[in-house]
Amino acid sequence: MPNVSQRGIDMPASPIRRLVPLADDARRRGIKVYALNIGQPDIPTPKEAFEALKNIDRKVLEYSPSAGLMSLREKLRGYYKKYHIDVDVDDIIVTCGGSEAVLFAFMACLDPGDEIIVPEPAYANYMAFAISAGAKIVTIPSSIDEGFALPPMERFEALITPKTKGILICNPNNPTGYLYSMKEMLQLRDIVKKHNLFLFSDEVYREFCYTGAPYISAFHLPDIEEQVVLIDSVSKRYNECGIRIGALITKHPQLKQNVMKFCQARLSPPLLGQLVAEASIDAPAEYMLDTYNEYVDRRKLLIDEINKIPGCYSPIPMGAFYTVARLPVDDADEFCQWCLREFSYEGETVFMAPASGFYTTPGMGKDEVRLAYVLEKEELRRAMHVLGKALEAYPGRKTC
Amino acid sequence: MPNVSQRGIDMPASPIRRLVPLADDARRRGIKVYALNIGQPDIPTPKEAFEALKNIDRKVLEYSPSAGLMSLREKLRGYYKKYHIDVDVDDIIVTCGGSEAVLFAFMACLDPGDEIIVPEPAYANYMAFAISAGAKIVTIPSSIDEGFALPPMERFEALITPKTKGILICNPNNPTGYLYSMKEMLQLRDIVKKHNLFLFSDEVYREFCYTGAPYISAFHLPDIEEQVVLIDSVSKRYNECGIRIGALITKHPQLKQNVMKFCQARLSPPLLGQLVAEASIDAPAEYMLDTYNEYVDRRKLLIDEINKIPGCYSPIPMGAFYTVARLPVDDADEFCQWCLREFSYEGETVFMAPASGFYTTPGMGKDEVRLAYVLEKEELRRAMHVLGKALEAYPGRKTC
Repeated sequence: MPNVSQRGIDMPASPIRRLVPLADDARRRGIKVYALNIGQPDIPTPKEAFEALKNIDRKVLEYSPSAGLMSLREKLRGYYKKYHIDVDVDDIIVTCGGSEAVLFAFMACLDPGDEIIVPEPAYANYMAFAISAGAKIVTIPSSIDEGFALPPMERFEALITPKTKGILICNPNNPTGYLYSMKEMLQLRDIVKKHNLFLFSDEVYREFCYTGAPYISAFHLPDIEEQVVLIDSVSKRYNECGIRIGALITKHPQLKQNVMKFCQARLSPPLLGQLVAEASIDAPAEYMLDTYNEYVDRRKLLIDEINKIPGCYSPIPMGAFYTVARLPVDDADEFCQWCLREFSYEGETVFMAPASGFYTTPGMGKDEVRLAYVLEKEELRRAMHVLGKALEAYPGRKTC
Repeated sequence: MPNVSQRGIDMPASPIRRLVPLADDARRRGIKVYALNIGQPDIPTPKEAFEALKNIDRKVLEYSPSAGLMSLREKLRGYYKKYHIDVDVDDIIVTCGGSEAVLFAFMACLDPGDEIIVPEPAYANYMAFAISAGAKIVTIPSSIDEGFALPPMERFEALITPKTKGILICNPNNPTGYLYSMKEMLQLRDIVKKHNLFLFSDEVYREFCYTGAPYISAFHLPDIEEQVVLIDSVSKRYNECGIRIGALITKHPQLKQNVMKFCQARLSPPLLGQLVAEASIDAPAEYMLDTYNEYVDRRKLLIDEINKIPGCYSPIPMGAFYTVARLPVDDADEFCQWCLREFSYEGETVFMAPASGFYTTPGMGKDEVRLAYVLEKEELRRAMHVLGKALEAYPGRKTC
């Protein structure tokens, strides 16, 4: 048998999806599993999306342009304008989810051996896409005790080498729910400008900022317009993760051309998803507000409940719909597996993502988990109750 | 401004899509453009596909499993069985089009610097995906005068080095329409077995074999089961290129695991496309037969008409819906551009893909184009008439 690639062997398994088979097994044993592991909201997709599908008036489900349907790109431009992100249609390239936008950004900006600096914990799949591109992610740990604030700029400066091509942020942050302040964003802007780096900015959670402070896009920062590579997705804001529609937005002329070669190679983004995304942009303000309010309530409930459990701690997330919480266990990975494999309380258990998978620094996040508050409030309350019972029963529990 | 990646700069622009802006310009000038450049069939998608969309009974368009919906994978297994391809559900990984299947096959099998051998002309995007993976495609030219038959095995043997990880074929072939014989397939099997190589086999056109000889899948070959990586797509057989659903099929246990890591990183294949693909497998035999018969007629018409034009030659393609034809011009790339930029006959012109983009050997295919017979017969007839007029008027015409 021929050998597989070392690249694939080296790639870490997804911390979000790795334990899915254990959860499936638990369900087969009749256990109710509260899935807090993945950002798969239970909130209904807008009805405009379903209507678009019912009203398709085409004979052939044909390829769309490699950069996406012009009508969708025009609608996206209008959408961004509302957030004071001023981009042309030509700056917007539609991708197969935010995932493909990250992959193409790395493929088109980074050569093998190039480095990008990422504060961690970070969305684990960035690592997978960097490995795909042969690039190296250099991480700077942020700390739960500082609420996962942006690490000081000296630590970025210390890691910049001739191989450094960019800095990547996710804002509002997955997995921590942190929201970068204007001061932090301007620090990032200065360092990016000083060293002529790309600023990769994943802003797929921009709808979900809970502090009242204005949302700051990388495109709002002065004088680095052509250095910003914005990653976007309709998945989270319209609760349609399955349609796989995202976007890569750049004003860098040569980067656009480079990205388009990768786009042409894969022919086109999904047509049906594009039709749905386009219709979803017309979802009424009320839909967006209801979704927002629901997350505000869930956030409060989750954070209040988890902080009540002895030994548990979560800072208050300011955006997105995740938090990284500290649990009183030696090894959260083992604990998450144990919850699925061995534990149940009144026929129920919890499925969490071990946070170690969101760090590359060895030993970091060992006692942390990421929780997605994507279940309705009563389910979340019950999930936290079950988590408390699990921690009581867990043999590896730390004494506080 | 930071530099873009050399990888992207090195990547050739798609020969299929590179001239699209010229065609769009011609259309804006009011010229009717016969699009023979891309395998985008005009044949209607099965009505079962549209019904599936109208009958979606979901509240949330959520992520699907990373390997695809189990119901789709089960249906695909049944579909393959009809072609005597005996695979388990676990061997079938659903991808975002055949494109992603090729990318993941390369990413999961090849490390930077690894080589695969491909007979050329070849589907141009293989090169793009190989560049993405940092791998090298080593080509062996086949010749229009031999009808694009498989080059002799000695030429493969001569190119095998310790870096060689596989051989890639497309069968029935895009762009040539060649169909490998049992003898040729067994030769490939022997060499793959002898050198312990992967056999990447792109079989997305298996429905379209016109010789009466049985279709031979790489999975039919004895004793190399775990070396075969089959690339598939529903795009062509159900005329639904836009839904972006394909599959990677392998029985190599470690390769499955490797591929799944790339699948998990991108979360899931498009949900709506999967629902459509699943429904399309239920399209009646009559739909498939009508499609088949239509291509048989178009093939005859196209080949008869082009071979009537003085100085033009196309072998009879035995499968798929393409042919590579020789034109009496010095530079087919310039001719194709000229047709879109400067020529029209009674307000019409033709859009063809220059074949040089399907070769990597310099100078090959300079007087060849790929034609896709994806228009209805009267359109094709008219397109060939217009092509004849273009060749008469073209200043760079070779004297025969």
